Amino acid sequence: MSNTDSPVLALAKDLLQRQSVTPEDAGCQQVMIERLKALGFEIEIMVFDDTTNFWARRGNQAPLFTFAGHTDVVPSGPIEQWHTPPFEPTIIDGYLHARGAADMKGSLACMVVAVERFIAAHPEHTGSIAFLITSDEEGPFINGTTRVIDTLMARDEIIDMCIVGEPSSTDHVGDVIKNGRRGSITGDLVVKGVQGHVAYPHLAKNPIHQAMPALSELAATVWDNGNDFFPPTSFQIPNIAAGTGASNVVPGELQVQFNLRFSTELTDTDIKRRAHAILDSHGLDYDIKWTLNGNPFLTSEGLLIDAVVKAVKAVNHQPAQLLTTGGTSDGRFIARMGSQVVELGPVNATIHKVNECVNIADLEKLTDMYQKTLENCLV
Amino acid sequence: MSNTDSPVLALAKDLLQRQSVTPEDAGCQQVMIERLKALGFEIEIMVFDDTTNFWARRGNQAPLFTFAGHTDVVPSGPIEQWHTPPFEPTIIDGYLHARGAADMKGSLACMVVAVERFIAAHPEHTGSIAFLITSDEEGPFINGTTRVIDTLMARDEIIDMCIVGEPSSTDHVGDVIKNGRRGSITGDLVVKGVQGHVAYPHLAKNPIHQAMPALSELAATVWDNGNDFFPPTSFQIPNIAAGTGASNVVPGELQVQFNLRFSTELTDTDIKRRAHAILDSHGLDYDIKWTLNGNPFLTSEGLLIDAVVKAVKAVNHQPAQLLTTGGTSDGRFIARMGSQVVELGPVNATIHKVNECVNIADLEKLTDMYQKTLENCLV
Repeated sequence: MSNTDSPVLALAKDLLQRQSVTPEDAGCQQVMIERLKALGFEIEIMVFDDTTNFWARRGNQAPLFTFAGHTDVVPSGPIEQWHTPPFEPTIIDGYLHARGAADMKGSLACMVVAVERFIAAHPEHTGSIAFLITSDEEGPFINGTTRVIDTLMARDEIIDMCIVGEPSSTDHVGDVIKNGRRGSITGDLVVKGVQGHVAYPHLAKNPIHQAMPALSELAATVWDNGNDFFPPTSFQIPNIAAGTGASNVVPGELQVQFNLRFSTELTDTDIKRRAHAILDSHGLDYDIKWTLNGNPFLTSEGLLIDAVVKAVKAVNHQPAQLLTTGGTSDGRFIARMGSQVVELGPVNATIHKVNECVNIADLEKLTDMYQKTLENCLV
Repeated sequence: MSNTDSPVLALAKDLLQRQSVTPEDAGCQQVMIERLKALGFEIEIMVFDDTTNFWARRGNQAPLFTFAGHTDVVPSGPIEQWHTPPFEPTIIDGYLHARGAADMKGSLACMVVAVERFIAAHPEHTGSIAFLITSDEEGPFINGTTRVIDTLMARDEIIDMCIVGEPSSTDHVGDVIKNGRRGSITGDLVVKGVQGHVAYPHLAKNPIHQAMPALSELAATVWDNGNDFFPPTSFQIPNIAAGTGASNVVPGELQVQFNLRFSTELTDTDIKRRAHAILDSHGLDYDIKWTLNGNPFLTSEGLLIDAVVKAVKAVNHQPAQLLTTGGTSDGRFIARMGSQVVELGPVNATIHKVNECVNIADLEKLTDMYQKTLENCLV
């Protein structure tokens, strides 16, 4: 750590040199906790199975404003393709390089420093501030944010407004604010046929042949047309497999996995009903296992969205775009409370890739955006 | 071996106790060679790579009548499911049990004994008799019959009539004579898409979605209507695979293997042309590797078919059915010479399964059928 590092850069580096690959936290949360304790936050460490989470709150008044994020990172991938060691944060041409720099230890540093500055400037602010930090966002997301939210809901502790620090930006920080996310549902389909020899097709029933027209229809279906905030629901088949490997055996079953990213125009119940209707109409003999990865959520209006939009514009001198595109995030779990939820974080171009990096000037701007949002909400 | 065993049963047992799993011969051919040498056959052992074959001929006159077969067997499969040790030939209720009993060491014993009896009865018969025996029929069929045929054709030694001892029968020996076989061609298709994240489908191109309509059309195509001797050409997809296993990744390519069993109404060239036309009409980006496993062949008329039909009827007192159904056999390689080829052998109900067995009375009848066929052709 250099003596000339800014507070944000120094904290980001401290977090980034810890090898916190999911579900490991590697001490990151303790670094944040020490800083928050010094500000008067009450700390509650919540360990669920292999996952460490913490909930930190300062104040008892409403509204409750929360920063949410994760200390875990995805694996480095092929180390020989990295220009710098992935867990030795390194500055090159104004960019901080390390696994997690953009997703999302940079954001965590910005949140802490923004809160420190905000409290110093407004010790008598209204409402309360909290942090909800997990170490399993990149993993199975079973023992992380969703269980913290369960705990809070069980005791009627409701988050009113929440910024998730996910890397929402495309070209420069704040060009995109995510004010919702599509839902995601996965179907694991097994179509049953009758195994046999290709030379005797009348004694076999090929599940691939049986399934293709139904799969074509599923893929060609217009599920909805989206709405003002969501693109149309999309259907994709990421995996398909059948066959013994032998060229003379008609396989006995076909395994197909499909995934829909769906808008608020549909529910998971609608999707299941329509998918079953299509499969049934083709007379298939099948089993299907559904996994609801997350319902869609949307924060279309309210104090938070106005506050974030205004804060970003004040820093960037140009407006942000509000989008709901992209993958899922822990925002879906928080939105279950009825909270206003937005995601604002760095540029996501390098996340989950080798040579992940973040623009250092963007981290300073993001800190300002977080601080101004707090001022817009709690002053 | 019991002293009361008939010559056919004794020879079958001798061959069956040898563990000649492809491409091993385990001394079977030497047993046959000793018997044939004693009859005055000239023996030519042809070793190609890992495969031992032999060609035995007695006489220089036309027509050249040949018995063709193989000494290799498929693996025993799960030994604990066998009621008797697979390489200890055992008689139970009139059936001889062992791997290869029906496919086709039983037939080999019948051929040798039939020829011994025929020569003893007709030492001055017309034409010549030959044996073409391989040990790779159950394997890759690269170094077996096809290379012996190449060798014979290169020196203009042409087989006029050939009985292949493949187990052609369904309920009792001689109920079915195979007087041809369908062709078989395999296409290994790779459909290329663009890999991506399922959340951003507009940046990806799913090869499964792209391919399904084309594959449906291939599967629904009426390739031909067959003819008097062949069922319609059939298309099957034995293998299909795409995907990384992850539910959020659109795969970059789809691998599909399809196989056609085709009649004499089509050539492999016709099939390739029509398949490419369908794939092209769907605008697919694809590669395809074709493997011609065998062209169809048919012996619809001639001295041999008449001789075999008559011989079977004389033994069974009922006519045989002439069929071209079922998988491929080495007959396709011999037919390349323009030979008349038929397949006549035991009941195939247990072949390639555990507890393979053959009716001992059927082996005695098959010996009579082979001997009578020789009499119908060469006396």
